[in-house]
Amino acid sequence: MTIIAPGGRIGILGGGQLGRMLAAAAAELGFTCHIYCPDADAPAMDVAAAGTRAAYEDAEALARFADSVDVVTYEFENVPAETARILAEHAPVRPGVAALATAQDRSVEKNFLASHGIATAPFADVDDERSLAAAIEAIGTPAILKTRRFGYDGKGQAKIATPSEARAAFDAIGRAPAILEGFVPFEREISVVVARGLDGKTAAYDPVENVHKHHILDRTFAPAMLAPTLADDARAIAAKIVDELDYVGVMGVEMFVLPEGTAPRLLVNEVAPRVHNSGHWTQDACLVSQFEQHIRAICGWPLGDPKRHSDAVMTNLIGGDADRWLQIAAEGDTALHLYGKAEARPGRKMGHATRLYPLGTLRPDTSR
Amino acid sequence: MTIIAPGGRIGILGGGQLGRMLAAAAAELGFTCHIYCPDADAPAMDVAAAGTRAAYEDAEALARFADSVDVVTYEFENVPAETARILAEHAPVRPGVAALATAQDRSVEKNFLASHGIATAPFADVDDERSLAAAIEAIGTPAILKTRRFGYDGKGQAKIATPSEARAAFDAIGRAPAILEGFVPFEREISVVVARGLDGKTAAYDPVENVHKHHILDRTFAPAMLAPTLADDARAIAAKIVDELDYVGVMGVEMFVLPEGTAPRLLVNEVAPRVHNSGHWTQDACLVSQFEQHIRAICGWPLGDPKRHSDAVMTNLIGGDADRWLQIAAEGDTALHLYGKAEARPGRKMGHATRLYPLGTLRPDTSR
Repeated sequence: MTIIAPGGRIGILGGGQLGRMLAAAAAELGFTCHIYCPDADAPAMDVAAAGTRAAYEDAEALARFADSVDVVTYEFENVPAETARILAEHAPVRPGVAALATAQDRSVEKNFLASHGIATAPFADVDDERSLAAAIEAIGTPAILKTRRFGYDGKGQAKIATPSEARAAFDAIGRAPAILEGFVPFEREISVVVARGLDGKTAAYDPVENVHKHHILDRTFAPAMLAPTLADDARAIAAKIVDELDYVGVMGVEMFVLPEGTAPRLLVNEVAPRVHNSGHWTQDACLVSQFEQHIRAICGWPLGDPKRHSDAVMTNLIGGDADRWLQIAAEGDTALHLYGKAEARPGRKMGHATRLYPLGTLRPDTSR
Repeated sequence: MTIIAPGGRIGILGGGQLGRMLAAAAAELGFTCHIYCPDADAPAMDVAAAGTRAAYEDAEALARFADSVDVVTYEFENVPAETARILAEHAPVRPGVAALATAQDRSVEKNFLASHGIATAPFADVDDERSLAAAIEAIGTPAILKTRRFGYDGKGQAKIATPSEARAAFDAIGRAPAILEGFVPFEREISVVVARGLDGKTAAYDPVENVHKHHILDRTFAPAMLAPTLADDARAIAAKIVDELDYVGVMGVEMFVLPEGTAPRLLVNEVAPRVHNSGHWTQDACLVSQFEQHIRAICGWPLGDPKRHSDAVMTNLIGGDADRWLQIAAEGDTALHLYGKAEARPGRKMGHATRLYPLGTLRPDTSR
């Protein structure tokens, strides 16, 4: 097991806000970062020592990039398999290629979870109209059709209220390979941000509750209002997933909480093999943020203590929300984080604000 | 009063750890930074969008630098007057040139404080042997001879235990223009990190206690163990100083605390017109760090709330101390900050570690 010492260089694939916050956290520990990103507007480059602007298919640029760093990580799960393979020939890639392959495909992911006894919503593969009909027969409606790959923030999804809507839904997702997921009558959505070190140790932040708006995360409440045993169960599920994947780094595990009297109470919705939007509150309410935790993990350092010193509510600033920066900056107990993006397009994550509350005082108002 | 909006560019003179931490804080608020520094080993450049490596006397490079940014600030008080003058022709310089001039010269600084009724140790100007003799006559011994300019971390100082040592002390400081300062029997050294916004509002962090080793700050205890009225007095003195200077930005104000029964109890030792080593604990124990506070002030933003959510002890990692990074990273409740400096020379500040304690539980052990 190689530990990467301060002064080492970390390669980050992707130049968005997650890469930016990873780079800032890495610098705090004495590392320098090299960002690899095809986009012109790559805010992570503004806080990194080096940058390469090239396509994810540019084998030569990828090799040069990986040769210049001690470890490669990424801010998004849709790293092409061939990209990951080339990088791995030149530097350790963490989290590893197997975790990427699992998380990139909803069918593979759900089958992986099921094979390890981790409950999910019922699901079936859909490749064509015939398998779609069979899936609806097996799972029933209402259900959601989701592309196996490249879905995020509600993209690549279509609801099927009755069997007659099936074909239109399949058209809506471009007839891409998909899974059909049964609707589950969940009470709330929670997530656990968990880390696993090179030494196999795990550390999970407290489960948080997430509220979405237009399929995009709107607010995260830390902690989620869960019975202590249920919170322990959520942490244990997240730890089991990273253990079974022999994972190194931070992972976001989204779960549904079902009503009391149901068994099991927790279903895993999806996993993200990276730092996660629902973990941004850790920057301000924990001594070691999810970004530092990820850097610690991929560098072979001991994981930091995930405990929180404050309760917190994180609110995403989407599109024009960030125009309120001056008002937010004047609010007490509130930390403002802006991503330095050039253009505030609708639906684009421009920043977030985290409001702190004394430990143990938060009673979420999820009415909004 | 112009407010600089996110997306604006901040120019920072100096590429060391303070510039680095300022740049990181600026990025969090959506700004980009341009570092100006003559040194090859300038860790601030690693987290900034742009950098200029040029001498502080290079008028053309300075003008180009200042033209490229919305505001200029600095990480060290010894900015040459001519440098500041050139910059100010091209961009607002904050804190302003007057504050720099006052803080660069111990005699000017002490006279400024005295003229506003702020107590200091007794002092007298020393320009030659004759004025040295007169100063010793007036102030007595023991006393300390300090160069008027360019002193820091105990450099440019010589102790005079008895009048017979005066000449050797004057030689030791290179016969530079100096002041003689009377010894004060202080109980402890404290500091207040205070900020003043463009709108004239001030905000002071809690006074902290500082323990030095070999004339370099070793540890800071937040808060200092002071009676509440004395802590209020310390904050009020710091606020008065920034008000009287019409200052914009963060300032570190070092004070001596004299034993009970003495009046006044607080003497100002010196002021630093910049973010201050004794304010590093605010990164981890406050929602708004001194670095963010400085950026808010110089950009015309409302100041953040300086309250702390935890008690803290900050320990500087000097020279080889930083070799212990792996042990420190494994300590609970401890945040490690490394500056990314290439070479760990003796006496060089390489990083710091801040240990948090629940609010109200810290009882400093200053025995070390």
